[in-house]
Amino acid sequence: MAALFRSSLKLRPATRLSAVRTLTTTPHLRAAEKPFFPDEPTAPKLATAIPGPNNKAAAEKLDKVFDVRSLNMLTDYTKSTGNYIADLDGNVLLDVYAQIASIPVGYNNPHLRKVAESPEMITSLINRPALGNFPSHDWADILNTGILKAAPKGLNQVFTAMAGSDANETAYKAAFMYYRQRERGGPETEFTEEELETTMKNQSPGSPQLSIMSFKSAFHGRLFGSLSTTRSKPIHKLDIPAFDWPQAPFPALKYPLEEHAQENAQEEQRCLQETERLIKEWHNPVAAVIVEPIQSEGGDNHASPAFFRGLREITKRNDVLFIVDEVQTGVGATGKFWAHDHWNLETPPDMVTFSKKAQTAGYYYGNPALRPNKPYRQFNTWMGDPARALIFRGIIEEVERLNLVENTAATGDYLFAGLERLAKQYPEHLQNLRGKGQGTFIAWDTPKRDEFVAKAKGVGVNIGGSGVSAVRLRPMLVFQKHHADILLESVEKIIKQL
Amino acid sequence: MAALFRSSLKLRPATRLSAVRTLTTTPHLRAAEKPFFPDEPTAPKLATAIPGPNNKAAAEKLDKVFDVRSLNMLTDYTKSTGNYIADLDGNVLLDVYAQIASIPVGYNNPHLRKVAESPEMITSLINRPALGNFPSHDWADILNTGILKAAPKGLNQVFTAMAGSDANETAYKAAFMYYRQRERGGPETEFTEEELETTMKNQSPGSPQLSIMSFKSAFHGRLFGSLSTTRSKPIHKLDIPAFDWPQAPFPALKYPLEEHAQENAQEEQRCLQETERLIKEWHNPVAAVIVEPIQSEGGDNHASPAFFRGLREITKRNDVLFIVDEVQTGVGATGKFWAHDHWNLETPPDMVTFSKKAQTAGYYYGNPALRPNKPYRQFNTWMGDPARALIFRGIIEEVERLNLVENTAATGDYLFAGLERLAKQYPEHLQNLRGKGQGTFIAWDTPKRDEFVAKAKGVGVNIGGSGVSAVRLRPMLVFQKHHADILLESVEKIIKQL
Repeated sequence: MAALFRSSLKLRPATRLSAVRTLTTTPHLRAAEKPFFPDEPTAPKLATAIPGPNNKAAAEKLDKVFDVRSLNMLTDYTKSTGNYIADLDGNVLLDVYAQIASIPVGYNNPHLRKVAESPEMITSLINRPALGNFPSHDWADILNTGILKAAPKGLNQVFTAMAGSDANETAYKAAFMYYRQRERGGPETEFTEEELETTMKNQSPGSPQLSIMSFKSAFHGRLFGSLSTTRSKPIHKLDIPAFDWPQAPFPALKYPLEEHAQENAQEEQRCLQETERLIKEWHNPVAAVIVEPIQSEGGDNHASPAFFRGLREITKRNDVLFIVDEVQTGVGATGKFWAHDHWNLETPPDMVTFSKKAQTAGYYYGNPALRPNKPYRQFNTWMGDPARALIFRGIIEEVERLNLVENTAATGDYLFAGLERLAKQYPEHLQNLRGKGQGTFIAWDTPKRDEFVAKAKGVGVNIGGSGVSAVRLRPMLVFQKHHADILLESVEKIIKQL
Repeated sequence: MAALFRSSLKLRPATRLSAVRTLTTTPHLRAAEKPFFPDEPTAPKLATAIPGPNNKAAAEKLDKVFDVRSLNMLTDYTKSTGNYIADLDGNVLLDVYAQIASIPVGYNNPHLRKVAESPEMITSLINRPALGNFPSHDWADILNTGILKAAPKGLNQVFTAMAGSDANETAYKAAFMYYRQRERGGPETEFTEEELETTMKNQSPGSPQLSIMSFKSAFHGRLFGSLSTTRSKPIHKLDIPAFDWPQAPFPALKYPLEEHAQENAQEEQRCLQETERLIKEWHNPVAAVIVEPIQSEGGDNHASPAFFRGLREITKRNDVLFIVDEVQTGVGATGKFWAHDHWNLETPPDMVTFSKKAQTAGYYYGNPALRPNKPYRQFNTWMGDPARALIFRGIIEEVERLNLVENTAATGDYLFAGLERLAKQYPEHLQNLRGKGQGTFIAWDTPKRDEFVAKAKGVGVNIGGSGVSAVRLRPMLVFQKHHADILLESVEKIIKQL
């Protein structure tokens, strides 16, 4: 028995077997394929109604000290394996939400366990460096064999950060400094007395009224700068002061794409034109445009590679930086390591931000002029966390060892075909199916979305939504065709209950 | 031999002994005291000029991919022990800067090593949760036995974050939501259509023009909201758009305090009056005032407990929230666990933010109304990192086991007395000595500050500055009297070289 997981995990029995209802699937439908993790459950297991008594009690306890109103489920990570997530009542669900799209190589991945037990990890955890001042002797190696090994084409440097929001905000800061440096005439030009004085009062010209342009329905984070570029839902933004920054329209494509090719092309053209107009005319000059390859939180909104190539051209033509936010799309989920690899850009983005599946964060860049002209302009105490950088290195190794990008592309195609069949069968419940050729980064609209998502646990699946009416699939990179079979059957079961 | 460190560390010999110059100290000056870490070096060791050849080569390599212009020294953390930091050339320095005040219990602390090797740590590292949605079964326990065990008096809840900047910014967000909720008439009042629409355009009333008040010379972080409250140095702020928020004057006290009691009280009174005037008159209404107990990055500026009590009264009287930023002062360094414990407040601060020595971050609060009225208003994917929360728990355990707050208070008094003697001897080089009774959180001004800090490594000490002319001491909580002796001798050696 190839007990790779079991031996290193010392798994307790996942559920009390007497009470367990294992959700079997129709055998002839199951794709035959070698599982990445031999000890993964073969199907979800339901032991109680969800949430069960243990989960309810634990939530009540946690609520005393920690806001649990956004709680989905208390999780027993020691009992979660591969694509399966366990709660505290013996329920084990197929997880296609994966910690809001942030788990890449499965729960309790044995290779990551080795990384977590390594001497480098121990020293990173107990001797946390101020990376800008006192990086460790092996920090260059950790970067070169990890974060930078995965760097997008054309970008060979990194500024490390903690999470998606500050990754984006530090990229914005780099963009503003670059913009003003160019206005000043280069890195050698000193700041004026007026700049030095006004910035201490938060006033222009020292604190200039420049802007970052984002797109309608975009999500780029929740801190003050990133939230000013987030345009997905009012609930994220209400009551929080924001910068007077512009938003461009994002294409609203019609599906199926092949039936609306001309309309969609026109729609994208309209959005590009409006984007360029806003860059030229917005009263607070635009230093950079930021865009997600697929708007995720905002409802899984796609645009074509031609649209993004057009955007790159516009930013070039108007001397505006082009930032691609790959926080949710990055690290393999779309069937390429970076989603913007689908675009065939002539010149790379100026900056690419990452987080989530990378388990660490930051922005990549290539142009040396994006390093601010003086030290301590882009700086903070920790500037990321080497412990999490080591985890990303382990993830990259696992992606290579198991060919997980290729797996995700192939599994995604298989899953998409299955969903297309279901969409024909249940057109009312599976509208605007999208993400074809984008790995497992697949979504559709459904009129009873919240009900759909809520009922999913009852058939053994943990699934998420995005935007107002979309079901978004965000399985891990270790999601295989036999998992897709279970998911497809589960989707049908849910639809039949609606 | 009580080889607690050596056995768990498997330390390689720290330096090539033949080349090493051990900096011995005058024996009769050394305080007799049981060292916390028997295997800590007894004195700094210098093997090369600093930076040595290995450090230079490593810096050159790192610079290719990572901006190293703020580099202080490449560090070999595997060879660093307790209060001593090692570089790549065999130099071992007494570290009184401690990763910008963020290492509390010594390099390679054996208890933290055990925490790092624990099953809870491994699972936290390889199964990173989205804490708001899928917290682990033991998250309440981890909080209650860790972060919340150390909670300031009167504050019993926490919102966890990644680092100081987002800890402060999420506290600001809570303050803005609280302010607007009160204006609306309570948590039950629904948002208006106008609010929902305008916030998507970053416009008032949905995105209101409210403000956070901070103080001149304050430092609260470097993201867009926190940077708008940072007022320490132009280099942090230049070229970055900022909110139109007010800054109040921070008292400029004269030293020695006992010789300027009346003047200083008047100065504090003046600042309090101006603070209240700004709260009443600033065109963007003030939702909260944030203050550091000791302005750290801004130059180690102190104010009296009476000043802070006055501030608490003003905020109460004007219905403005009072946020205490304990990112640098918290976790024992001032001889109390929280620096604001020195103030004897009648009512606790509304929020207290923490990071650095906690090795994780967030804000504490007590008033349940500071939880936003709906879920997902204060939220992000990770909301901190349980791995780092486990480290903080280990730090708290170590602080308790070794009585490190008491140690820091006593060592601080001892060190301060020694510095007072030096100040009498070298009044030109040790001006405005401050931090009496504040543990080891001690600083002074010196006309040749940068030169002083640069020369420190040559006598075996790693030391930092703050503001324009201050030398700031930020030793760890495991800094003992025998370390203070070495530091005092080193300070004198440096002064003699100036």
